Amino acid sequence: MCAVTSNAEIAQLESVYGPLADSVRRLIDATIRTTAEPTAVAAAKEKIDCATVELSAALIPDSFGVQQADDGQTMAWGNVMIGLRNPVAPPLTIHHEADGLVWTDFVLGAAYEGPPGHVHGGMCAMVLDHVLGATAHKPGRPAFTGTLTLRYLRGTPLGPLHAEARIDRVDGVKTFAVGHIADAQGITVEADGVFIHPRQNRSA
Amino acid sequence: MCAVTSNAEIAQLESVYGPLADSVRRLIDATIRTTAEPTAVAAAKEKIDCATVELSAALIPDSFGVQQADDGQTMAWGNVMIGLRNPVAPPLTIHHEADGLVWTDFVLGAAYEGPPGHVHGGMCAMVLDHVLGATAHKPGRPAFTGTLTLRYLRGTPLGPLHAEARIDRVDGVKTFAVGHIADAQGITVEADGVFIHPRQNRSA
Repeated sequence: MCAVTSNAEIAQLESVYGPLADSVRRLIDATIRTTAEPTAVAAAKEKIDCATVELSAALIPDSFGVQQADDGQTMAWGNVMIGLRNPVAPPLTIHHEADGLVWTDFVLGAAYEGPPGHVHGGMCAMVLDHVLGATAHKPGRPAFTGTLTLRYLRGTPLGPLHAEARIDRVDGVKTFAVGHIADAQGITVEADGVFIHPRQNRSA
Repeated sequence: MCAVTSNAEIAQLESVYGPLADSVRRLIDATIRTTAEPTAVAAAKEKIDCATVELSAALIPDSFGVQQADDGQTMAWGNVMIGLRNPVAPPLTIHHEADGLVWTDFVLGAAYEGPPGHVHGGMCAMVLDHVLGATAHKPGRPAFTGTLTLRYLRGTPLGPLHAEARIDRVDGVKTFAVGHIADAQGITVEADGVFIHPRQNRSA
C-alpha cells in the first residue's frame, strides 16, 4: 500500500487513528494489570471483540507498510517503534539535531517488562536499533541494520527514559553509529551498529 | 507482586486472562489495518474506552512482575515476549530440548513491522535476546543479558518464523549462547550473546 495522500487528508486521518491507537495502548496496560472479577473481564472482552468486528469491516489486506504524502514525507504509521497507528509502539518521537545527534525521550510501562520492574533487555535492543538506524535514514531512502552490538551495564527500570545516537563514521553505503539508553541515573545500555543503504530497496 | 498461587487458581486465572489478551491482540491488528469510516472508528474507540474503565476498576499498582505458583513454577505473564497476559507479546512459546537446544515457532504480523512487509530489525533483536537468554535461565534464577551481537543477513518477512539458540560454553556466571531467526528460506538474522547469573537478583 503506497497511496499518495494530501496533507489535509493526513491531518484528518491522524485525528481519527491517533486517538484510537492511544485508547488501545491504555487498554493494553489495563489488560496486564487488572484484577477485576471474571464477570467484569468477560464484559470487557465482549466490548473489545465488538470493537474489533467494527474495525474489521474494512481492512487493508496485509501490513500497513509506508504510505507517501504529497510533500514527499513518508508515513510509517504501522511501524512497531514509531507508528502513530500501532498500539505496540510507545510510540517513539525521533528528534534530529543539526549536528547529527538523534534522540528521543519516552516512557516504557508494564507492557515492555522483562525482569520484574525492568524493561526487557530485548526491548532496549529494539529501541537502540531504531535510534541508531535513524542516524542513517534519509527521506525515502531507509537504512537497514547490518550488525548491532549491545552492552548492558545494568538493568533499565520501567519509567521515563532517554535514548540517543550519533554517526561515528560513514564508509560508502555503510553508516557506523553509536548510542545509548539512559535513565535519570545515567547510561544503562550502550550500542554500536552498522546500517546499510541498499542499492535497491529490499522492501517487499 | 509475588504472591504464591495454587495450580488450580492458576488454571482459573489463565482461562480468564488468556482469552482477554488474545482479544486485545486481534484488536491491535485491526487498529493498524482498518480503513473503516471515522464514525465506525469512533464507535469502536468508545467500546475500547469502556472496556478499559471496566478493567481498571481494580489494578495492581505497578507492572505485573513475576508471580510464583506453589509448585515453584514462575508466571511471567506480563513479559513482553512470553507473557500470557501481555497483548504486546506474540507470545513466544519457548521449548527446551534435552540436548540444551532452545527453540520457538511463531508468527509475526502487522504489529511488528519495520520496513514494509518485514519484521523491524529491533524486533528480531528482541526475539533473539529472549531465545538466547533462555538457554541460560534456570527456574527461579533468571539470567540477564551482558552483551548481544546481531548480524542481519537479509530482511525477515512478516509471517511464520523460527528461532533457536544453544549454549556455546559456560564460564562461571557467564553463559555464551548462539542462535538465529529463520523463515522457510533459511536464516535471516544470526546472534551471539553473553548472559549472566547475578550473585544477587537485580530485580526491583
